[in-house]
Amino acid sequence: MSDQINRRNFIQKSAAIGAGLAAIPGTTFAAPAASKNGKPRSKLNIGVIGAGMRGQGHIEMLLNRSDCEVPAICDIDQGMADSALALYKKKGKPQPKVYGLGERDYLQLLEDESIDAVLIATPWRWHSEMAIAAMKAGKYVGVEVCGAFSIDECWQLVNTHEETGTPLFFLENVCYRRDVMAVLNMVRQELFGELIHLECGYQHDLRGVKFNDGKTPYDSGVEFGEKGFSEAKWRTQHSVHRNGDLYPTHGIGPVAQYIHINRGNRFLTLASTASKSRGLHEYIVNHSKGGQDHPNAKVEFHLGDVVTTVIKASNGESILISHDTNLPRPYSLGFRVQGTKGLWMDVNQSIYLEGQSQPHRWEPAQPYLDRYDHPLWQKYASDAEGAGHGGMDWFLLNDFVESYKRGEKPPIDVYDAATWLAITPLSEQSIALGGQPMAFPDFTRGRWIR
Amino acid sequence: MSDQINRRNFIQKSAAIGAGLAAIPGTTFAAPAASKNGKPRSKLNIGVIGAGMRGQGHIEMLLNRSDCEVPAICDIDQGMADSALALYKKKGKPQPKVYGLGERDYLQLLEDESIDAVLIATPWRWHSEMAIAAMKAGKYVGVEVCGAFSIDECWQLVNTHEETGTPLFFLENVCYRRDVMAVLNMVRQELFGELIHLECGYQHDLRGVKFNDGKTPYDSGVEFGEKGFSEAKWRTQHSVHRNGDLYPTHGIGPVAQYIHINRGNRFLTLASTASKSRGLHEYIVNHSKGGQDHPNAKVEFHLGDVVTTVIKASNGESILISHDTNLPRPYSLGFRVQGTKGLWMDVNQSIYLEGQSQPHRWEPAQPYLDRYDHPLWQKYASDAEGAGHGGMDWFLLNDFVESYKRGEKPPIDVYDAATWLAITPLSEQSIALGGQPMAFPDFTRGRWIR
Repeated sequence: MSDQINRRNFIQKSAAIGAGLAAIPGTTFAAPAASKNGKPRSKLNIGVIGAGMRGQGHIEMLLNRSDCEVPAICDIDQGMADSALALYKKKGKPQPKVYGLGERDYLQLLEDESIDAVLIATPWRWHSEMAIAAMKAGKYVGVEVCGAFSIDECWQLVNTHEETGTPLFFLENVCYRRDVMAVLNMVRQELFGELIHLECGYQHDLRGVKFNDGKTPYDSGVEFGEKGFSEAKWRTQHSVHRNGDLYPTHGIGPVAQYIHINRGNRFLTLASTASKSRGLHEYIVNHSKGGQDHPNAKVEFHLGDVVTTVIKASNGESILISHDTNLPRPYSLGFRVQGTKGLWMDVNQSIYLEGQSQPHRWEPAQPYLDRYDHPLWQKYASDAEGAGHGGMDWFLLNDFVESYKRGEKPPIDVYDAATWLAITPLSEQSIALGGQPMAFPDFTRGRWIR
Repeated sequence: MSDQINRRNFIQKSAAIGAGLAAIPGTTFAAPAASKNGKPRSKLNIGVIGAGMRGQGHIEMLLNRSDCEVPAICDIDQGMADSALALYKKKGKPQPKVYGLGERDYLQLLEDESIDAVLIATPWRWHSEMAIAAMKAGKYVGVEVCGAFSIDECWQLVNTHEETGTPLFFLENVCYRRDVMAVLNMVRQELFGELIHLECGYQHDLRGVKFNDGKTPYDSGVEFGEKGFSEAKWRTQHSVHRNGDLYPTHGIGPVAQYIHINRGNRFLTLASTASKSRGLHEYIVNHSKGGQDHPNAKVEFHLGDVVTTVIKASNGESILISHDTNLPRPYSLGFRVQGTKGLWMDVNQSIYLEGQSQPHRWEPAQPYLDRYDHPLWQKYASDAEGAGHGGMDWFLLNDFVESYKRGEKPPIDVYDAATWLAITPLSEQSIALGGQPMAFPDFTRGRWIR
């Protein structure tokens, strides 16, 4: 009852500010699985599949909450599982059940009836398989972001959700970034007018993530694969064998929300162009632990250093996405939100609004970001302090937990997941075909129109 | 003889600094037409075809020079011709011969044997026709920038040049911008390493240029075509009827020079995407002299507000070009020059160079732009003061005059013109075909390889 009231208040408030993530309309889901266990809906048992660096971050935040428990974790890497267990000890929490005897031991975790929900933070190759199995097991699913391998995989996510009724929450944390949410607020209040063109991307020098010394995660060597540690163990292989936008969601997530993708709008086509590939080879050759004679100097990386993708949306917007992870550069998601009345750009931290800004002059974005700060950030900024990625991970996980407790559909759902994930295989196909435009499937089967 | 010595000195100096525009190698041209008249090569008689705002700018700069005369001008608009004549009076110069009785009266000017060279600054529709006629008449040609209407037109420029031996100088002034030339200097000294990805564009709110009150050029009303003044008279029609990157050269000119296009590299393919078109209609409707009932509120503008074009080059670089002229925004050509060692961006006035910049942090570009200031700017900045577009127009016109006097081929030649101009029809074709990639012709017929 009080949940219902809270929910109504929340939605009213969100509608009033015009920018609450949870207020984005969409399809209605079946009630979450937890109710069938008769457990109080305010308490959530979460299993974490994948207890590496990212999974440990989630576990730590969940252990800090009074409305969750994490009674089971799963990882085939004993060292990572041990690091996760140390978090429980540090917090004075009882040790969880640990799964991980083999690659499919996660299925055992899914059979545990006491588990209401799972968070999946494994290497990309496992995301969809695990999410699909979890939906089939009736576990509310939170799955980390990546790009898909195939369009079929995206359909499998959608089809499994529709067959089982189990909700899937796609864990795109940048949708919760403070400036991103403030701009969402501004977009909904039409400060930029009608949106025309958007830009975004993943421009992150990952060379020190893709390679390390096999013992420490960052900037420590030129090893990857079996000899690598953490993400270098698996992520780098994708740069060897694939050429496309491998990681589109941090950019496209917020943009998709700004222009109502799957909620009155949809992506129609995409075309991608890849530059040559030089950065990773250069890194190996020039690193003090590498050199021309290092075995990895012979590896041919297929991933273009900069992959540029342009999307056309049904309502007429153009969207540019950059994927730029192999070259030395400062981090930037390169956001640009441009409409008939002005634009915001991330990289120069500036805004221009006709009639408000001095003609033809940028002004600093920060005063606007402060003025349109999202009510959720105003309320919870102190709770989020110290959480990952500038606090946005706290908001992400909070929304994951709270939308379950309230029986609401996830604000970032399986249709969003399928649509955003599809960018990767479509961009690979486009590049393979010399830049041909590729058509997006409509994963909502026409329901986006309503 | 002294010209030869000057020329050799200039080339040696340019080679030493590694960045002289004139030092870019290319094909060899026949000696300029002036020599056949037996005139001293240090004195140049220039005819100006098109004496509108742009042509008047050229005339004013030429009248300031002691090595040029402008004994003939041509314009069919009596008001513009009168404004040009007033410049002669102001400078105390004898009045020129004025052509302009009809649209093809420029052919009479071309028959004047005393004219060595012509500058063409007419509406876009006339550029190629006039340049071709001028080459046939043996006049050294300087032609203003635009985008082509057809690939055939680009071939006609090339073919006419090859048949006549007359040099064509493509008047792309942004190649002479101070920061652009400093970055060229940095590129040639390999501060950015091997170039991987480049961005550029024409992001210029032209609404107040495309529309006016028919009497004054800027921001004065919502008329265009017959009722418009200056560029509004003819330029706006292109936004009504065409959808593509209509004005690519300010961006692509410098980028093409950075990556040696037609001099060891070439553009392979291009794909373009246009956003919806809203900006021009909104401008008319919301303007105090416009409104919903103004006749121009019924005009349907075909030009997408933002046109995004991605080029792939033979040496593996990707290039992004933006065309964004219908929306409120600060001016920006959006340059980005990114290589294996770092990048420069225009919009945030920042640079990042691995090993020099603080890791993962932008630093201000200006100290680098000062340190790598081009020797030509160091030498002539005071001469250029007050000239158009921050002084770069002075350098452009100076290079036009000096390269003729020295008997050098133009640093921006007919092959550059054809290649850069081709972006417009190729982008129109790509958009018309739903974003299909289009192949660039090789206007050098294979000579780019050498």
